[in-house]
Amino acid sequence: MSTAFGDPRVYERFWRQTGEKSTIIIPGWQSMSYFSDVTNICWFLEAEFASEVVRLHTVVGNAVTEGRHIVVGTGSSQLFLAALYALSPTDAPEPISVVCASPYYSSYPSMTNHLKSGLYQWGGDAASFEKEGPYIELVTSPNNPDGHARISKVNRSQGFLVHDLAYYWPQYTPISAPADHDLTLFTVSKSTGHAGMRIGWALVKDKEVAKKMTKFIELNTIGVSKDSQLRAAKVLRAVSDSWEQGNSQEGESFFKFSHKLMANRWKQLRLVVEHSELFSLPKFSPAFCTFFKQVLEPQPAFVWLKCEGNVEDCESFLRAHNILTRSGKHFGVSPKYVRISMLDTDENFSHFLERLSAIKS
Amino acid sequence: MSTAFGDPRVYERFWRQTGEKSTIIIPGWQSMSYFSDVTNICWFLEAEFASEVVRLHTVVGNAVTEGRHIVVGTGSSQLFLAALYALSPTDAPEPISVVCASPYYSSYPSMTNHLKSGLYQWGGDAASFEKEGPYIELVTSPNNPDGHARISKVNRSQGFLVHDLAYYWPQYTPISAPADHDLTLFTVSKSTGHAGMRIGWALVKDKEVAKKMTKFIELNTIGVSKDSQLRAAKVLRAVSDSWEQGNSQEGESFFKFSHKLMANRWKQLRLVVEHSELFSLPKFSPAFCTFFKQVLEPQPAFVWLKCEGNVEDCESFLRAHNILTRSGKHFGVSPKYVRISMLDTDENFSHFLERLSAIKS
Repeated sequence: MSTAFGDPRVYERFWRQTGEKSTIIIPGWQSMSYFSDVTNICWFLEAEFASEVVRLHTVVGNAVTEGRHIVVGTGSSQLFLAALYALSPTDAPEPISVVCASPYYSSYPSMTNHLKSGLYQWGGDAASFEKEGPYIELVTSPNNPDGHARISKVNRSQGFLVHDLAYYWPQYTPISAPADHDLTLFTVSKSTGHAGMRIGWALVKDKEVAKKMTKFIELNTIGVSKDSQLRAAKVLRAVSDSWEQGNSQEGESFFKFSHKLMANRWKQLRLVVEHSELFSLPKFSPAFCTFFKQVLEPQPAFVWLKCEGNVEDCESFLRAHNILTRSGKHFGVSPKYVRISMLDTDENFSHFLERLSAIKS
Repeated sequence: MSTAFGDPRVYERFWRQTGEKSTIIIPGWQSMSYFSDVTNICWFLEAEFASEVVRLHTVVGNAVTEGRHIVVGTGSSQLFLAALYALSPTDAPEPISVVCASPYYSSYPSMTNHLKSGLYQWGGDAASFEKEGPYIELVTSPNNPDGHARISKVNRSQGFLVHDLAYYWPQYTPISAPADHDLTLFTVSKSTGHAGMRIGWALVKDKEVAKKMTKFIELNTIGVSKDSQLRAAKVLRAVSDSWEQGNSQEGESFFKFSHKLMANRWKQLRLVVEHSELFSLPKFSPAFCTFFKQVLEPQPAFVWLKCEGNVEDCESFLRAHNILTRSGKHFGVSPKYVRISMLDTDENFSHFLERLSAIKS
């Protein structure tokens, strides 16, 4: 379980430093209603949260928000399901195929199939998808698990694209341009590290799609926790503030902190792996980051480690050395690969490196 | 939309009076992890919330918690869907039927059918359900929309029962005994009035069912907002405290406040309806309430109003008089009935009474 989600414990230290700037106080009488704004398509969206989402995307430059409807969800998982519901044709003779190029996020197949929906079904690897007619393609960029930037794979006219940009933040990857797609998913879990809030958001171009996604969330959970939306607003504001004030020496900015931290971890990891003939890492190309205004290397939230040589089952091999990972087979590829979180606590990350470097061939 | 859920704005006044006792403060670094307790079946359940749930049921005497697993959900809606997922046979040749005696909660059919699941499907009115084999019966007691106490209707051996006890609280109905069922749903929306929190809980006897419900919530939203769980814990604690301290004159208790308020509203409503030949209300029998230790009348969260005489479409008739209601047809019965919330603000409730009493035959 604990290897499944990449628990973002690594950011706790930053948030301890911010003190009251990120503390929220909610009196007992507040946010009692189901409704936030009945004139908005997404009637349970807190205005404060929505405006901090727009502001943060403007500060970071990672997504176009103009001409988009914001739909808030209980994490981006719920928005992923809402998107499937909204994009599936209602009167199709058979379920629409949902595909993603492998290696893909290990939860996509089970999230898509667990209710045996007649609207949509998992169609497997986008690279080998041949079926005629409409389909939904998930484009995760940077990709979970392997960290590579991606564009859509199935290049046909009847495709609906869902862009899962959970990791398109400057601490993980150079920001190349504001994402400008039909339907884009983000989440606080990976951006600020607040996984326990369960808050995600979708930027949706088409009004009818935004309406249907909202309808799904109404049927699923009658809206999204207001407490967490208000807290997310506070935390996103602190991130934007820290960047703007960071330029005027008011303490460290969140993205500088998190970028430095990831850079440091990746440097340590590369040292260990380069000294070993047993393992290899994906190769990334440096690129210009419009946010940090310099050429930078990707430093993904996950290690996508390959066991070289004779080891066929990398997960079992590492488990024997007390390292818990998630096998490549869950991601639609060979068990020679495993995924390991780079977002765990300092203590756990140190243990991981120690154990990894102690393995001799 | 705003007539669909029965927004519980009525309790705001109580929570304003409680001041700091119900205020929550969450620093930015808290509750960042996905996990609450990995040793618990429901690994995203906050221990503080769980213990306040147990305490409140003990104080009120409305449910047995011993020998039960607590599963927290994003409102009881999510737990309803989790229960369907958990109780559906995995290898059945066709979807299991989900039934409820009419009039039933208007969202049950669409929540059950919106994904065209191959696991379960809406089977309609439990009273006329004849199909052989396994089925799921929803028992809502007191019932939404009509306020009557209920027991299961389909009396056969292969049924799974889901007891939706959202309204089994002393302000709405006399508490007769602690509910002692296999799977029971509760929610803060109707108990304390905090609909915006989206927090519900299930008391589940069978360990495997609790595990599957937890799995559903993992696939649906990867857990439940920790912020709202912590806030719910605080609010439930304030309710229990107010009852225990109320007996020692420390200010009004929540249930005395809310019971008095509902009693007052029902009294006013009965006066208006009794003076009219156009409308009638359900008849309720008084019963001994083990919580208040006296014989009391039910005073439901909804009015289930019947248009007498020639009016066939009660919703349209009332809309013409500026009263927004929800037609009986959504609840599986005649459009001569409508449902109206008794939990709206004082202002809206007054408007409703004024408008209703102004209608002449």
